[in-house]
Amino acid sequence: MTELRQNLITRDWVIIASERSKRPHEFAPPLSKLEPLPTYRDDCPFCPGNEHLTGTQECLRLADNGGWRVRVVGNKYPALSDVGQRVRHGEGIFKSLSGVGYHEVVIEHPRHDLNIALMDIKDISNILRVYRQRYGELRKDPRVETIIIFKNHGGSAGTSLEHPHSQIAALPIVPYQWRDRAREAVRYYDDTGECLFCRTLKDELKAGDRIIYAGEHFAAFIPYAALSPFHTWVFPRNHASSFDEITDLEIEDLAQTLKVVMSQFYFGLNNPDFNYTIRSIPTAEQRTDYFHWYIAIIPRVSLTAGFELGSGMYINTSVPEESAEFLRSVKIPSSI
Amino acid sequence: MTELRQNLITRDWVIIASERSKRPHEFAPPLSKLEPLPTYRDDCPFCPGNEHLTGTQECLRLADNGGWRVRVVGNKYPALSDVGQRVRHGEGIFKSLSGVGYHEVVIEHPRHDLNIALMDIKDISNILRVYRQRYGELRKDPRVETIIIFKNHGGSAGTSLEHPHSQIAALPIVPYQWRDRAREAVRYYDDTGECLFCRTLKDELKAGDRIIYAGEHFAAFIPYAALSPFHTWVFPRNHASSFDEITDLEIEDLAQTLKVVMSQFYFGLNNPDFNYTIRSIPTAEQRTDYFHWYIAIIPRVSLTAGFELGSGMYINTSVPEESAEFLRSVKIPSSI
Repeated sequence: MTELRQNLITRDWVIIASERSKRPHEFAPPLSKLEPLPTYRDDCPFCPGNEHLTGTQECLRLADNGGWRVRVVGNKYPALSDVGQRVRHGEGIFKSLSGVGYHEVVIEHPRHDLNIALMDIKDISNILRVYRQRYGELRKDPRVETIIIFKNHGGSAGTSLEHPHSQIAALPIVPYQWRDRAREAVRYYDDTGECLFCRTLKDELKAGDRIIYAGEHFAAFIPYAALSPFHTWVFPRNHASSFDEITDLEIEDLAQTLKVVMSQFYFGLNNPDFNYTIRSIPTAEQRTDYFHWYIAIIPRVSLTAGFELGSGMYINTSVPEESAEFLRSVKIPSSI
Repeated sequence: MTELRQNLITRDWVIIASERSKRPHEFAPPLSKLEPLPTYRDDCPFCPGNEHLTGTQECLRLADNGGWRVRVVGNKYPALSDVGQRVRHGEGIFKSLSGVGYHEVVIEHPRHDLNIALMDIKDISNILRVYRQRYGELRKDPRVETIIIFKNHGGSAGTSLEHPHSQIAALPIVPYQWRDRAREAVRYYDDTGECLFCRTLKDELKAGDRIIYAGEHFAAFIPYAALSPFHTWVFPRNHASSFDEITDLEIEDLAQTLKVVMSQFYFGLNNPDFNYTIRSIPTAEQRTDYFHWYIAIIPRVSLTAGFELGSGMYINTSVPEESAEFLRSVKIPSSI
């Protein structure tokens, strides 16, 4: 018999379909995805020397000996533009708003072939510091209500660009999903006096069997009610509502945590396509007791189908405890 | 500049990214997807004569001259099982429930090569009648709280089986997404005295530019705030909360509506992968004033990426009005 589990943070139910489950390694794409990429491509707009191909304005450059370590540029096909005001229209059911905001691309490293599993801790820390700096800048614009940092890696995760990059979107609204989850988190706080995220982290650390890495300031785990195979959450141990509250010390530890987790995915699951996203509180709020920022990493090793689209529920064909055990046991080459 | 639109039924915001939008026909897969399939395959568990390959119990058979027109069988890899009681466990954040329920497969037609675009109206009506009959049966089980009917067509929509089939899942819970949308629909009803779905249909029919087919009892349209390209809703004109309230007369008209819409997709977009799902009120409620059953059809012609996963919002790279105009203009061969 299968088991339904409810994720108290998203409120979503998931069916853990262990009877039709695959073994953890069966989710991995073919080994060919581990073949190294070239370190440079002359047609890549993100490789050094090709900056003229980017075609958009540079917002930030972490300079390095005449070159750069990280660059932030405007998205060539922006979903949002920083020109103009927020104008609402609405007649009956037809509600709209002008697409004001920011849509930036973070070029994570000069080298074309790297990714977080293969980068130095120092490189990863640079990326995180750039995220924090842009977050801090963008939140100053009063038209911005929510800032999402996210990464698409691989074709099924929504990108065809190989060069390591991530994106920042600053939205002129608060997404409904956030309003809804906030309502639940506030209720939990009002009922118990406790942050639901702190409580989740505490209970997951105590149970232990879904933890994949626990550092000094961060812990990574596959949630009890993970909605899809290897769906991973990285929580800061220190309660904070927004990513830009992260300290320098925490950045070093988060870089280490991401390096380990991404290496588990890279070597254990043959460099799967994945998305990650950093979820913070909307910019109008700060330092609340009820919301806790976190990172979600979603390897794209399964599909959503009619069941998910019709119910908002999920079928997960892996068992979170088995997936976590598998990831903990991945041998990471010591040379990287 | 892009435009944000809010879907009042799902409450989700979507960015209509017209500047990076494709022309409607650019969403179509290659023409090779229109190549006919064989009418029969001896290794297909759903083809007539291979009933022994199905491997699960038959729940319903629409007999026809010693053969059958439609069969319903248990899913070979069921996400839910009808044996046992609903048992809840819960300790701290770890809430679970035994996976009690039903998971059935509707084999829609004896022929391997057909789909709704190519079937007779009578065949489609048969499928809809079978849906209604199974819905009526399953709702009698007091362990069942929600019934979802859905279809996966094509690899990216979650199925590798070619033979035309759909699925019915009877769940022992009410999905959170439903609870949440119901709360909003109740609020709209309390505020206005009107069903939000009836109002949406009325406003869409009046606007007209997103309608793709309007019959006597049903209308099909791409919603104003469609979350993905060609995302289509089919609403009954008559207010009813649950699919099993559909009348015989309405079944004929729905078959006609689905035939037209599926032909627009099939011939206009080269047989794209798609999901559809029929959304009804949970079984404990009936004939409410606030909820209206409907069908959602989601062609799988785009991907969700980190932006969607991180915000619960969507970027739609097509313009609903242009997509609807394109579908209305599709030439459907008169021979089918």
